[in-house]
Amino acid sequence: MSTNALIPTLFGVVGLIAAMIIYQRVRRYPTGDAKVAEIGDQIHLGAMVFMRREYTMLAWFCLVLVVLLWYFLGYKTALSFIAGAVASAAAGLIGMRTATRANVRTTVAAHNEGRDEALAVAFFGGSIMGLAVASLGLLGLGTLYLFFGGDPETAHSIHGFGMGASSVALFSRVGGGIFTKSADIGADLVGKVEAGIPEDDPRNPGVIADNVGDNVGDVAGMGSDIFESYCGSMIASIAIASTMVIDVMDPLGERTALMFLPLALASTGLVCSIIGIVLVRAFAAREPGLALRIGTIGSAVIFIALAFVVIQWVEVSYKIWLAVLAGAIGGIVIGLVTEYYTSSGPVERIARAGETGPATVIITGFAKGMESVTIPVLTLCVIITVSSLLAGLYGVGLAAVGMLATVGMTMAIDAYGPVADNAGGIAEMSGLGEETRAITDSLDEVGNTTAAIGKGFAIGAAALAALAIIAAYVETISAAKPDFVLAISDPKVLVGLFIGGILPFLIASLTMTAVGDAAYEMINEIRRQFREIPGLLEGRAKPDTARCVDIATAAAIKRMIPPGVIAVAVPWVVGFGIGPETLGGVLAGALLGCVLLALTMANAGGAWDNAKKFVEKGNLGGKGTDTHAATVVGDTVGDPFKDTSGPSMNILINVMALVSLVIAPLLA
Amino acid sequence: MSTNALIPTLFGVVGLIAAMIIYQRVRRYPTGDAKVAEIGDQIHLGAMVFMRREYTMLAWFCLVLVVLLWYFLGYKTALSFIAGAVASAAAGLIGMRTATRANVRTTVAAHNEGRDEALAVAFFGGSIMGLAVASLGLLGLGTLYLFFGGDPETAHSIHGFGMGASSVALFSRVGGGIFTKSADIGADLVGKVEAGIPEDDPRNPGVIADNVGDNVGDVAGMGSDIFESYCGSMIASIAIASTMVIDVMDPLGERTALMFLPLALASTGLVCSIIGIVLVRAFAAREPGLALRIGTIGSAVIFIALAFVVIQWVEVSYKIWLAVLAGAIGGIVIGLVTEYYTSSGPVERIARAGETGPATVIITGFAKGMESVTIPVLTLCVIITVSSLLAGLYGVGLAAVGMLATVGMTMAIDAYGPVADNAGGIAEMSGLGEETRAITDSLDEVGNTTAAIGKGFAIGAAALAALAIIAAYVETISAAKPDFVLAISDPKVLVGLFIGGILPFLIASLTMTAVGDAAYEMINEIRRQFREIPGLLEGRAKPDTARCVDIATAAAIKRMIPPGVIAVAVPWVVGFGIGPETLGGVLAGALLGCVLLALTMANAGGAWDNAKKFVEKGNLGGKGTDTHAATVVGDTVGDPFKDTSGPSMNILINVMALVSLVIAPLLA
Repeated sequence: MSTNALIPTLFGVVGLIAAMIIYQRVRRYPTGDAKVAEIGDQIHLGAMVFMRREYTMLAWFCLVLVVLLWYFLGYKTALSFIAGAVASAAAGLIGMRTATRANVRTTVAAHNEGRDEALAVAFFGGSIMGLAVASLGLLGLGTLYLFFGGDPETAHSIHGFGMGASSVALFSRVGGGIFTKSADIGADLVGKVEAGIPEDDPRNPGVIADNVGDNVGDVAGMGSDIFESYCGSMIASIAIASTMVIDVMDPLGERTALMFLPLALASTGLVCSIIGIVLVRAFAAREPGLALRIGTIGSAVIFIALAFVVIQWVEVSYKIWLAVLAGAIGGIVIGLVTEYYTSSGPVERIARAGETGPATVIITGFAKGMESVTIPVLTLCVIITVSSLLAGLYGVGLAAVGMLATVGMTMAIDAYGPVADNAGGIAEMSGLGEETRAITDSLDEVGNTTAAIGKGFAIGAAALAALAIIAAYVETISAAKPDFVLAISDPKVLVGLFIGGILPFLIASLTMTAVGDAAYEMINEIRRQFREIPGLLEGRAKPDTARCVDIATAAAIKRMIPPGVIAVAVPWVVGFGIGPETLGGVLAGALLGCVLLALTMANAGGAWDNAKKFVEKGNLGGKGTDTHAATVVGDTVGDPFKDTSGPSMNILINVMALVSLVIAPLLA
Repeated sequence: MSTNALIPTLFGVVGLIAAMIIYQRVRRYPTGDAKVAEIGDQIHLGAMVFMRREYTMLAWFCLVLVVLLWYFLGYKTALSFIAGAVASAAAGLIGMRTATRANVRTTVAAHNEGRDEALAVAFFGGSIMGLAVASLGLLGLGTLYLFFGGDPETAHSIHGFGMGASSVALFSRVGGGIFTKSADIGADLVGKVEAGIPEDDPRNPGVIADNVGDNVGDVAGMGSDIFESYCGSMIASIAIASTMVIDVMDPLGERTALMFLPLALASTGLVCSIIGIVLVRAFAAREPGLALRIGTIGSAVIFIALAFVVIQWVEVSYKIWLAVLAGAIGGIVIGLVTEYYTSSGPVERIARAGETGPATVIITGFAKGMESVTIPVLTLCVIITVSSLLAGLYGVGLAAVGMLATVGMTMAIDAYGPVADNAGGIAEMSGLGEETRAITDSLDEVGNTTAAIGKGFAIGAAALAALAIIAAYVETISAAKPDFVLAISDPKVLVGLFIGGILPFLIASLTMTAVGDAAYEMINEIRRQFREIPGLLEGRAKPDTARCVDIATAAAIKRMIPPGVIAVAVPWVVGFGIGPETLGGVLAGALLGCVLLALTMANAGGAWDNAKKFVEKGNLGGKGTDTHAATVVGDTVGDPFKDTSGPSMNILINVMALVSLVIAPLLA
């Protein structure tokens, strides 16, 4: 088995090389004339300025945690934490850098060569992010496992990797989410509604910030988010395997094999993702939506088949394969439900509610969002039941691994969306004409649907990963305190459940308020520029776009701190201040609240967005009607729902669960 | 002790006699001229038509449950169920009948005699409801306890009373909530916004339905709601006392004394409520808000003092008094937090968000609503911790009893609000002039604040009562299965937790959709009447108000069924289909979700309502501005939040908990 242990690291390196090759291919595409290149550079620079300031702030925060971890848990955990934080930050940076390179090239390809090449560039841009996430996760965890995994004494320190990754992810998600939505709302409300100029119009001072936001929120934020779910599911499974009681009569397999399996499956998944990316390229000449679907489903099917081979090879029970299968299928079901709620039936219903004004749009959308939790959560229940019947809590962990194994592919599609979106913005800003814009719009539309599926998938995966981590937390404490039980009728646990339930609501409130406040500043600044810069609206003067990027950056950096600190601090405070039982309750309550709010917010937000688009296509009277205005209100409310507060939920629960798992030995 | 057991029944009778005396006093006030009396009769008849149809539907539903209970649990439980259902329905009917009598008389008193007399009539109208709730609860439970309480074999059948009460309450709350908000939204959107006529204008076809709605939703619905929390807290405490293990070294008291105590405290609370009502009457000549506060706080303080005497008298530990105290104080704290979020700071902030349009009003209000869960839920945590440290789960039950003991007084103030609101409507419709309207408006404003406090209080009490009932459920099953543990790490419990979490979201979605759809029908009907009835807008023709009452009635009756059936059926399906562990998880998950959503919705809704009123008082530009229009959108979204979906949460969890407690012996 000892030589096998090199596999994850090696596969991680292979994945990174593949990502680099694709990056070279993207770079070879032309960046167009000076004007296009200049806009591309502005977006690129804006994004990099934000990332630098965000990561500087993060570095200080991580430093505090590193000191705490070193002091309480030793240098190995601290080292793992640093590795996780660096890997997460690197994944975000790589994805963002390539996305901001790919967007201009997509625009130019759409202009010069047509849809097929444009799709290829945009998708390649996204797939670099996908491969970076998967490879860095494997490389980091695989290497730590190589050094620390063999000895039970040091195996615990690997959890630091997850905590580092999730701490960075939390800040990236929250900060990026605040940035992108304050810029979006500000630019739209003043530009489209008040000044009456089109979206992405170069006269709008907020338009560069809006495009920067797509990158820092939807690319870097999403990347860090999925990265930590991906690593979290593996860490949890390894942790459960290292402490679980193995049934002598009907063993699932040897402990070392069970511990190694998550990494082996993830390595397999990375290969399948590369195959999926090749498939998309091969079918790019056909319909774009079809190509993306073939890539996603193809990689998932190949993974399920190869997973069976891997399970035979490491000699563990076939039951584990069934658990993996349950996770993989469950992820697809949850994604499809998300697709349903953000398309056709519910969307048209919300749009029609616009005929009686914005209030009914909000009521209907919110009701649909709340309804949409039903099937995904029941699907999670089925996955939990099936996988735990087959292989106990370890089965739940492996179901999460199964759901996330082909993350390279799903993430590629997620990151493709903002690249296509940006390409459209650049086409508009540099005046490349109707035809180019039509191509980028068609790519963007496909991206919106796949992004909705990706979001549902991310929530399901995060929930399952968190659950596995919580199970690992309980196992870790039980290993030291055999009578440790999280009984709901124990007031200590019950109080924890309630405290945990508060957290998602409080964090959602903080992030929504942050977007509202930052958007308010942005609105005032854009209004000021329209008022004070002579000739701006007539196109004779240039807006001060950098000032808007600055405002969004400052607001995001300042306001990401309170939610971040709460998420990281609560497990320490509750764990040491009250006790591990209450902390267990907190995790369960927070998990429940996070899943429910995340689904409600993502689906309501997506449905409002598409209801507006439905009207804009000419339905129910089309643009300019009262019905359209009503759906615009819904879309604006949905913005922080789906892109700030909702996505923060995934990470909130994972960061809390991972911090708890890391400090569990101290609490036991 | 055997003679003491007569006390609750006797006190119940005394309370009913007091209610009847007050009713005679209200009846003595004049009903004014023919026009006023006619409008009053229309409202009264509309309300009675709705109640008859609602109760007919309910009767069929209850019949099915009675048959099931008789078959599975014997005639005693079935009999208790019938008693509970009848008592709950009677409380609703009595309250509604007197409220619809008191409203006309309040208008006339305001017109003829001024504010003090108007306050007296309105408050008397509400206090009949308050006393009816408290007295019927005591009478019903006390009598059942007298017959079944002494024998452990039959004591369980008393739970049927709570199940009957809560089943009726669920339908009343949901049906009443759908009725009132569809009428309100419909009448406002077409009348105020489209036709530009004032609120409660007699030309508006929906105006009678709107006023009927205040009665069936806010009086009858609220009455049944509080009634079942009140009975639920007593039933749970009796159940816990009957099964708890009594510490021989440090006993809390004799089992019979512990079982009797909740009824004794409630009897004391009823006396204190009567004192509180007398206090309000005595101070009515002073400022109305002051009089109501003196009544509420006075009765609470006297109750706390007398509770100490009662606890000495039945010879149980003083620790129990401290638990009662924790509950009583906690209820006040939660009420005050609600008052804060629906006044001053948050409200002005939401109103100011209206300057950037309706979307920011919704975002800010929703953020404030989510933030508002923090302190109330932490308060619940403190109550749970303190009371369970003092007296175990029994302490939690007694804290709930302590919070609800003076329900006669708090309910009186809750029911006063809609009476004052209706009086204003009648004054407007019958054209009694500015001065009368000013008086009724001032009474209404006081009612709004107290209603907000009452709502917070109702949520806290319902949560604590539900918790006690869930504890009783666990105890009942544990008594038969000593190894019964609700461990969160058990996949069976965990799956239950998730399923339970879905329910509040699903029920909230169903009820919100119901309001949206019913309001849509109402809007179309009112538009049709304005279009098709010649001379209606000029005041030369009469609107067909009965048709609007019909539409709201039909919609409410039809749409209250799915949420009602789900709430009652889920415990049976999960309990028998999966098992008692999963059902325990469902209850915990639903409790958490219900409390969080109920607080969010009640406070966001109240804050939006008051933000609109804040602008209407002339702030930020006042009526007719874009800011005002934006806050009207917030208010309309808040309507189903605070008066339909939010309040349904309290009963949802209580009805599920009580059904589970009733079927617990079958599951064990």
